[in-house]
Amino acid sequence: MTSDIFFPRILHGGDYNPEQWPEEVWSEDVRLMRLAHVNVATLPVFGWVSLQPEEDTYTFEWLDRVIEKLTAGGVGLCLATATASVPAWMDQKYPDILRVDVHGVQQRHGNRHTFCPNSPNFRRLSTNLARRMAERYGSHPGLLVWHVSNEYGNTCYCDQCAAAFRLWLQDRYGSLEETNRRWNTTFWGHTYTDWSQIEPPTTNGERSMQSLLIDYDRFQSESLLNCYKAERDVLKAITPHIPVTTNLMGPCKPTDYHKWAKEMDLISWDSYPQRGATPADIAFNHSLMRGCKEGLPWMLMEQTPSQQNWQPYNALKRPGVMRLWSYQAMAHGANAVMYFQWRRSRGACEKYHGAVVEHAGRSDARVFQEVATLGAELEALGANTLGARVQSAAAVLFDWDNWWAVEYSSGPSVDLKYIAQTQSYYAALHDLGIVADIVSPEADLSQYKLIVAPVLYMVKPGVAERLEAYVQAGGVLVTTYFSGIVDETDLVTLGGYPGPLRKLLGIWAEEIDVLSPQESNTIRFEADSSISDCGMLCDLIHSEGATVLARYERDFYAGMPAVTVNEFGSGKAYYLATALAASGLRAFLQTVLGEAQIQLPLGARPPSGVEVTELSLPSGEAFVYVLNHNNAGVSVALPAGTFQELITGEETQGVLELTPYGVAILQEI
Amino acid sequence: MTSDIFFPRILHGGDYNPEQWPEEVWSEDVRLMRLAHVNVATLPVFGWVSLQPEEDTYTFEWLDRVIEKLTAGGVGLCLATATASVPAWMDQKYPDILRVDVHGVQQRHGNRHTFCPNSPNFRRLSTNLARRMAERYGSHPGLLVWHVSNEYGNTCYCDQCAAAFRLWLQDRYGSLEETNRRWNTTFWGHTYTDWSQIEPPTTNGERSMQSLLIDYDRFQSESLLNCYKAERDVLKAITPHIPVTTNLMGPCKPTDYHKWAKEMDLISWDSYPQRGATPADIAFNHSLMRGCKEGLPWMLMEQTPSQQNWQPYNALKRPGVMRLWSYQAMAHGANAVMYFQWRRSRGACEKYHGAVVEHAGRSDARVFQEVATLGAELEALGANTLGARVQSAAAVLFDWDNWWAVEYSSGPSVDLKYIAQTQSYYAALHDLGIVADIVSPEADLSQYKLIVAPVLYMVKPGVAERLEAYVQAGGVLVTTYFSGIVDETDLVTLGGYPGPLRKLLGIWAEEIDVLSPQESNTIRFEADSSISDCGMLCDLIHSEGATVLARYERDFYAGMPAVTVNEFGSGKAYYLATALAASGLRAFLQTVLGEAQIQLPLGARPPSGVEVTELSLPSGEAFVYVLNHNNAGVSVALPAGTFQELITGEETQGVLELTPYGVAILQEI
Amino acid sequence: MTSDIFFPRILHGGDYNPEQWPEEVWSEDVRLMRLAHVNVATLPVFGWVSLQPEEDTYTFEWLDRVIEKLTAGGVGLCLATATASVPAWMDQKYPDILRVDVHGVQQRHGNRHTFCPNSPNFRRLSTNLARRMAERYGSHPGLLVWHVSNEYGNTCYCDQCAAAFRLWLQDRYGSLEETNRRWNTTFWGHTYTDWSQIEPPTTNGERSMQSLLIDYDRFQSESLLNCYKAERDVLKAITPHIPVTTNLMGPCKPTDYHKWAKEMDLISWDSYPQRGATPADIAFNHSLMRGCKEGLPWMLMEQTPSQQNWQPYNALKRPGVMRLWSYQAMAHGANAVMYFQWRRSRGACEKYHGAVVEHAGRSDARVFQEVATLGAELEALGANTLGARVQSAAAVLFDWDNWWAVEYSSGPSVDLKYIAQTQSYYAALHDLGIVADIVSPEADLSQYKLIVAPVLYMVKPGVAERLEAYVQAGGVLVTTYFSGIVDETDLVTLGGYPGPLRKLLGIWAEEIDVLSPQESNTIRFEADSSISDCGMLCDLIHSEGATVLARYERDFYAGMPAVTVNEFGSGKAYYLATALAASGLRAFLQTVLGEAQIQLPLGARPPSGVEVTELSLPSGEAFVYVLNHNNAGVSVALPAGTFQELITGEETQGVLELTPYGVAILQEI
Repeated sequence: MTSDIFFPRILHGGDYNPEQWPEEVWSEDVRLMRLAHVNVATLPVFGWVSLQPEEDTYTFEWLDRVIEKLTAGGVGLCLATATASVPAWMDQKYPDILRVDVHGVQQRHGNRHTFCPNSPNFRRLSTNLARRMAERYGSHPGLLVWHVSNEYGNTCYCDQCAAAFRLWLQDRYGSLEETNRRWNTTFWGHTYTDWSQIEPPTTNGERSMQSLLIDYDRFQSESLLNCYKAERDVLKAITPHIPVTTNLMGPCKPTDYHKWAKEMDLISWDSYPQRGATPADIAFNHSLMRGCKEGLPWMLMEQTPSQQNWQPYNALKRPGVMRLWSYQAMAHGANAVMYFQWRRSRGACEKYHGAVVEHAGRSDARVFQEVATLGAELEALGANTLGARVQSAAAVLFDWDNWWAVEYSSGPSVDLKYIAQTQSYYAALHDLGIVADIVSPEADLSQYKLIVAPVLYMVKPGVAERLEAYVQAGGVLVTTYFSGIVDETDLVTLGGYPGPLRKLLGIWAEEIDVLSPQESNTIRFEADSSISDCGMLCDLIHSEGATVLARYERDFYAGMPAVTVNEFGSGKAYYLATALAASGLRAFLQTVLGEAQIQLPLGARPPSGVEVTELSLPSGEAFVYVLNHNNAGVSVALPAGTFQELITGEETQGVLELTPYGVAILQEI
Repeated sequence: MTSDIFFPRILHGGDYNPEQWPEEVWSEDVRLMRLAHVNVATLPVFGWVSLQPEEDTYTFEWLDRVIEKLTAGGVGLCLATATASVPAWMDQKYPDILRVDVHGVQQRHGNRHTFCPNSPNFRRLSTNLARRMAERYGSHPGLLVWHVSNEYGNTCYCDQCAAAFRLWLQDRYGSLEETNRRWNTTFWGHTYTDWSQIEPPTTNGERSMQSLLIDYDRFQSESLLNCYKAERDVLKAITPHIPVTTNLMGPCKPTDYHKWAKEMDLISWDSYPQRGATPADIAFNHSLMRGCKEGLPWMLMEQTPSQQNWQPYNALKRPGVMRLWSYQAMAHGANAVMYFQWRRSRGACEKYHGAVVEHAGRSDARVFQEVATLGAELEALGANTLGARVQSAAAVLFDWDNWWAVEYSSGPSVDLKYIAQTQSYYAALHDLGIVADIVSPEADLSQYKLIVAPVLYMVKPGVAERLEAYVQAGGVLVTTYFSGIVDETDLVTLGGYPGPLRKLLGIWAEEIDVLSPQESNTIRFEADSSISDCGMLCDLIHSEGATVLARYERDFYAGMPAVTVNEFGSGKAYYLATALAASGLRAFLQTVLGEAQIQLPLGARPPSGVEVTELSLPSGEAFVYVLNHNNAGVSVALPAGTFQELITGEETQGVLELTPYGVAILQEI
Repeated sequence: MTSDIFFPRILHGGDYNPEQWPEEVWSEDVRLMRLAHVNVATLPVFGWVSLQPEEDTYTFEWLDRVIEKLTAGGVGLCLATATASVPAWMDQKYPDILRVDVHGVQQRHGNRHTFCPNSPNFRRLSTNLARRMAERYGSHPGLLVWHVSNEYGNTCYCDQCAAAFRLWLQDRYGSLEETNRRWNTTFWGHTYTDWSQIEPPTTNGERSMQSLLIDYDRFQSESLLNCYKAERDVLKAITPHIPVTTNLMGPCKPTDYHKWAKEMDLISWDSYPQRGATPADIAFNHSLMRGCKEGLPWMLMEQTPSQQNWQPYNALKRPGVMRLWSYQAMAHGANAVMYFQWRRSRGACEKYHGAVVEHAGRSDARVFQEVATLGAELEALGANTLGARVQSAAAVLFDWDNWWAVEYSSGPSVDLKYIAQTQSYYAALHDLGIVADIVSPEADLSQYKLIVAPVLYMVKPGVAERLEAYVQAGGVLVTTYFSGIVDETDLVTLGGYPGPLRKLLGIWAEEIDVLSPQESNTIRFEADSSISDCGMLCDLIHSEGATVLARYERDFYAGMPAVTVNEFGSGKAYYLATALAASGLRAFLQTVLGEAQIQLPLGARPPSGVEVTELSLPSGEAFVYVLNHNNAGVSVALPAGTFQELITGEETQGVLELTPYGVAILQEI
């Protein structure tokens, strides 16, 4: 694709499963879609068995009719390749398709995500279906985008995977000797003397070698990606100009989306905030997802219009919250607002998952009305904002390999969870008014004034050099405890932590102390004598050139450095030797923001619970989204100038008044 | 059987396992039984291997001798078919007998309940033994009742069961198309195209289709019941006039006792209250068990005389408690008070389970003395109360299918547990002095003035019509949140909750909000402005004719109805849209009791901790049991008149004084 | 061995894994070892695959070179047989080596401890390697001790084990009839009619017969021990004068170390205190380990110099703590202070486990310096204390069979954990200044004035008689609730608890009440009216001659005896019918210590947190270790006389001043 603009309008719609309903319902659906200003339907995600009830029989006719009804009604197509759910006959006929779980148990037919990504039969049959879909519907004028499979995320430990893994390793390391070396297999006498001795790490097998575990995750992520790519290639061969995506799932551990995004025309993802999620938690996922593809506009492929069914307590979204969260997605660059699902199923495991059309089927229901109102608003907004990208001067680094490695680590602390750690830094910035990007260590760092790299435990080749170059050129870097420890195969860099980051940071970490959740220490900043609680990990560091900003107050390492900064070239590199309490972290980052000379979107930190993002078009046209996450009205001070609010069309200046859960999209006039 | 009177006396005795002891102990046992006024022994429950040590060898002689000793000592026989425990040689010779668990793992020999209910070998060998038992002992004058197997409750997921399940489905639904339709298999593309694709729902298989899970439970309950029926048929062919039972286990999830009871001459069950069980909890189980067979007199087949062994903390029953709970069973219609077991085992896993004769073997022990004293009392009571049935004007509905369906439901709340929910309504009535019946929705409802149907989620065919007819004729119905949602295959009734109950209740539920245990709302009753806390689920309902009795006080649905009543014919139908706190529920039900014009047994609500039940004979003769569950004396006001207390024979009037844990059986003179 | 002195000096060193490092590191290692005063290295524990990369290929040359470097540098050899970690090629070639876990799942290659102890191939291949090691290095002058395998502790449930178990049973019980009788298999009809029906107790098999479970544990412990013995025999045949050990693990449940110790020349063990371990907890393990071999000097084979990696929170050992705990081991009789491991691994699962040489590789690091300082101290101490044994007048009984039996028991209380129970009595004595021995009931009891036998549930043949003889001769015995219940096959001794101890204790226990953690009772001592809380179990006992010292205060057994003493011959036998709160237990034992006329090491109870032990040589020469476990200085009053402190060489009298975590070794002049 050559443009940032994939669609002629903001997409509004969602998953549609007509095969669950008698044909007479289809017309009613189209009538209701028009009422709800729906302009896109995703289908047929789970239609495989309905399209191919046996290997040599195809029944596309029903889908033809559905598609005609939809497009006649003005509803465009997000066309699924329909390969997400393997038909029962297929599992029965080709049992090699059934995956083996981490306990070594082969799965039987059922549920979802049951295919082995290295099954040749699955690869053959899924690409065949994708090809037939493309051949049949590729030239349909209603076709907007391809939706390959659905929520990839399964892993497999079968013999097919074992064989493929060995080839993958041979390709990666060249020799068994090198594999042994990189995995440090001499530990506990685990040296392999033949490739055939390497097995998938089932729970009754080898789980004590972290390098093996990490490589197996890499291999499985790639194996799944190969499934996607096989279908994608088939689609592209037939419909080269139709964008292809697959719906991602936020911080999904088995799939390294930084690699996946390279193969996708645009990101789409499914946002299902957990109960109790904060605005920053939701924003974190949006930042992570858009950051996988340099902020290119993306699709909110799924969200529930009302409630979920698979959380312990599935509360309703309060009135206005679905609208707020839809605009929050747009504030992060979404050009599509879509729901799972259009019509609530009558039976099976998601019948208590919310839908636009509930079991009652009424268009006067609260949920339907909220959807329809939002649909009308989006329609009115038009195409002006399409293609805009978020502008942020700050980025948080995120890396799937690092995630795997940190959490496989045996020691030092069970509380060291990568997502929670990364979220805490992102959230502190969010509280300060900064909606950071979240990017790979391999992204272009030069566009940022501030980079925060929490727990950068694994430093892959080139990353230390890239960070050095970034700081050298004037960038500000913040990194933390448990950084710079291992290389890309989880081998410790000898000579002193933080290994390859030592020169940049100007410190040496001699030991790592661990505090339980009941324990804490305090640090004192030298500049203003302010103190902060800290805990979890306490690195015992020595300066090798860095300036000490704060020191520990207690325990046998009282007086040792706890926060340092190293002038490096034109920039600065900060090191946090311990996890600060939220208030202390916020205060520290406030100072760092000043050092990095970062401007806030509306020129000042917004009121609590208000999120502000800036987007701009290649033309330079800019938009400011202001989102009130509070269930109470709030006033937001605006900078000088006059703004048009794009939803209402009204002009405003001075102070922006937002209703509870209210939203404004401002454009300076 | 044609009469309510099965036995010539109140049975007093218990499980006896003579095969565990040398023959010289048997004579001592009979001597002690006479001391303890024991008149029945259950045996040989686990005697299979002792009676048939190899397939073609039988060794009944030892049992002959035991039986002669017992009956010579005046001890009658509750004769087990001895098929509860499969011999080791049989599992070894016929491995198809060994069941496969829910994880797909075939069990090895050991423990109990290890047979597959669809194993042809088990069916053949168990009925063979039952036949031999009946042939050998069927005409013994000491024989009182047959005890088939023991505590049925195992489930199996083997290939034999898979094959039988497919036949069961074909019989139930006629075609695969109909099965697909009823299970809504189009969801997630799970459509079956051949019967052979349907497999038992092991944990590595299909667990996402609730309809399959529910049907598999139905099938397994029936499969086990078929084992019982096969033995029962053999016994009945030889001893048609001897009653046949099997010991049930209260709310045992795998076995739909409403179906089982139809095949049993009388109910017997094993009462083992959990630590901390309230009087209402114990009463709940008695009501549930007797309600399976229209209140027909039943047997308390097992209880521990002192303590258990399989709970985390196995406290002793305090002095008087075993006697109290024995009379409580009789207050609920029991005509037999029996123990597990007579003599405490020397070894294996129940050696710390209490027994009448403890390891010390002494008749001067507290436990033995309490048993003997109770035996003497029961002997003195004579046969006057035999055959009496509990009279209650109120019933709580209970349904196994509904239990399964509610708890398989994915969403809305993990706290929605059917037993706990049902118990909370039963307990509120119990607190108010009403010992309700607990009956199937298919029972004769016309005898009741009040029916409470908590969480009547699944409405099976005819049930809505039966409830309508009941209310039409003047009955009072109370039902709740999460009622009227699905049909008998867990398909949602479209058009609005509570589906088929909507007309009767005069409401429409638009949405269901879910509160976590930390959250609550309050409701206010319009009549008296009283308020009650509420939570868990909050239906957002609209009246379609019902009168609103109470409304929510908080959240975005403040002001919406929370409690409604609909006049329907001559009766009233109440709907509770949310789970009330205990005090609020009690106050609400107090009002409803008044509306239903229900009289309390002694004319007034008894003191706290005192349970009162009324029983009567077909002759009209009536008895009132008054049970003091408090460890303190209590005075109970009596209505006008003079009563004879049947245990002491004393006359009383005005006020009845009960000792701690004391009991009275009153008969008006 | 004929002497208590195994080594020419206090050993100081630890595990060394040179195969993980390039050869150039080896020289650096030896240089650093000299700096650290290291005089012993344990190797090559995990070297199997490095020594035998295929079945017929041996590569000892690298080990030759390492050994030459070490011994040239003055480092002696603790030579491992290298059989701890089965090579991958071996598991692949002989899959019968791979063990089957308790769930019946065969393990795949990986981790540690994966061999089946009854695998003939493992037995053949491991003894072959041991023989080659002995042949090659047996006459090396640097060889100090053999280290067989490593941390034995795996169990297996495979078919090989099943077959061996049946032979073991035939040998133990002679006939199947006797096996049935001892296991009480008539319970639940579990009688075996053929040996082949007996299977290992996998979780999908027979877990309801405690006797089977206990016997399977005995069998597995012996099976593993047979692996050890097979290697030991090979070594002894070649190097009869070199002591042989294997490193034990404190209270390791699968291995009955009382049986193991008989086959070992000296005890060695690996001490890894859990987070939050008290001084008494650590001391408990040392007492248990040395008590396995009558207090013979032993080796602290492993401890971490800094932190661990496999606990949830792996805090650093504070400065001085590693030294303190090293001397604590010596205070309990250790003649070797060793570390795991010398150099921290670069990769795999223990890379965050502390080591003498950390990843930084620096000799100026805190950890290295503490090790080196201690090494210098030990070197200076010389050989004077070698061979000294702890002297204690009090012993706590401990028995592996009893441990298994108590914790397999179904009922009476889940809180009845044997280690925790035993620790509570040991800790109470420790608090009172007594560092007790911990010995088997089969040890020589005559050397003690006080024996505490907590929860002596299983009384094996001869034990009751031995305890009677001990008390008869003037000893003081304390035993408790849940004692004297079963024989060695878990069959209850009939006639009244505490069965075979009844005569000695002069009591009869009629019932056992169980209290939950939320419940308690109190007892009142008659002598001084002091009261103590009590709980968990409350035996309801009757005196049959014993004097009642305390009675219950509450519940229906108020007034019944709770603590009794029986004069028996010249001694006294105490019975605690319930678990006392810590303060009450301490007060009770204080009185008992007086009765037993036990002298404290320095004549008085030491300050809180100070541990004092007395050791003496056969020559009569005595040493007193004084250990300050407080992180604060403390003064300890000394008896009259002048003492030399052996570490500093200084003389002291009157009051001993100890620094935080300070240590003194006193010898009276």
